[in-house]
Amino acid sequence: MTREEDRQGHRGSGKGAPLYMALLHYPVYNRRGETVTAAVSNLDIHDLARAAMTFGIRRFYVVTPVEEQRALVRRIVGHWMDGYGSRYNPGRRKAFETVTVTSSLEEAGKDVERETGNRPVTVATGAALEAPLMTFSELGMLLRTGDRPWLILFGTAWGLAKDAVSGADRRLEPISGVGEYNHLSVRSAAAVVLDRIRKNM
Amino acid sequence: MTREEDRQGHRGSGKGAPLYMALLHYPVYNRRGETVTAAVSNLDIHDLARAAMTFGIRRFYVVTPVEEQRALVRRIVGHWMDGYGSRYNPGRRKAFETVTVTSSLEEAGKDVERETGNRPVTVATGAALEAPLMTFSELGMLLRTGDRPWLILFGTAWGLAKDAVSGADRRLEPISGVGEYNHLSVRSAAAVVLDRIRKNM
Repeated sequence: MTREEDRQGHRGSGKGAPLYMALLHYPVYNRRGETVTAAVSNLDIHDLARAAMTFGIRRFYVVTPVEEQRALVRRIVGHWMDGYGSRYNPGRRKAFETVTVTSSLEEAGKDVERETGNRPVTVATGAALEAPLMTFSELGMLLRTGDRPWLILFGTAWGLAKDAVSGADRRLEPISGVGEYNHLSVRSAAAVVLDRIRKNM
Repeated sequence: MTREEDRQGHRGSGKGAPLYMALLHYPVYNRRGETVTAAVSNLDIHDLARAAMTFGIRRFYVVTPVEEQRALVRRIVGHWMDGYGSRYNPGRRKAFETVTVTSSLEEAGKDVERETGNRPVTVATGAALEAPLMTFSELGMLLRTGDRPWLILFGTAWGLAKDAVSGADRRLEPISGVGEYNHLSVRSAAAVVLDRIRKNM
């Protein structure tokens, strides 16, 4: 799919607001609460691209300030888009069409603005975000009824660092489970978040 | 946590039916639709154990007929339960408490029967199961109101083979996304399934 085809609405068209997501590898926390740049995980890209395709995300930004890591992601994506992988698994190829590599969140936002004509509203996600929080149903409703683009932010490692959260326009409520434990992987959490906000579409 | 503490209801107690899940590595399909035994993936165990803990699953069975693979899983679990990993990441340790390794689904079912006194109702999951299908809300309701144990079956690779599906008592509706694409990883799909059936608990 070319960028032009996509702009004409091949994905997520006619169903409310254009929805984007980004996986940030910086600034994120390590387990000691220090702000770090996390390494890109091949499986994160696979799983989140498949979830993006399933839940009608127009573009999935893989964001890292490290050029070598961006080159790695481009190689992985190329393998599944054009290389042996595209013949081995055409379904995976389709998912990888959503992937775009950028060096910063700002660059991803500008890309959304180029595509839609509007700066996206950014929404931080995390297991321990503080009020005021946007509920899943509130975000889902705004997506169904509005036309402003939205960009949902996920963090790798131990989650988005404070700077990434405070820089976002909104904060999404955490995923509640049955008890107090809610340490989902970003692969599981992103799928649940997208499923919850896409409900009733 | 000892088995005795668990039986007394440390997990998932007082909230309706005891819920279990199993990740089957055989019989599953490869991409050509052939029935194979898939290799165990370290990350599948991590992600599904974390989802199990988050959504109140009493026990997560990792099922493979290959003894070497079972030994590998026991080594991984041991690392996070007793080894360096248990000090490095106590949250992960908690999730791994749910993991039990068995050689067959039958063995997992017998384990549930030993714990609860009842044979579990098995529910197959998959992206392309055929009617009659149980809905997520139907299963959720039965979990809230009943006391019979349930065992949800997930397949690795390209999903549960026909024999595994037809041997199950029930089949769960597939996860619907926004369009026709619904090729989620088992790591994403299991989290979404658990989230959907646990809604409103």
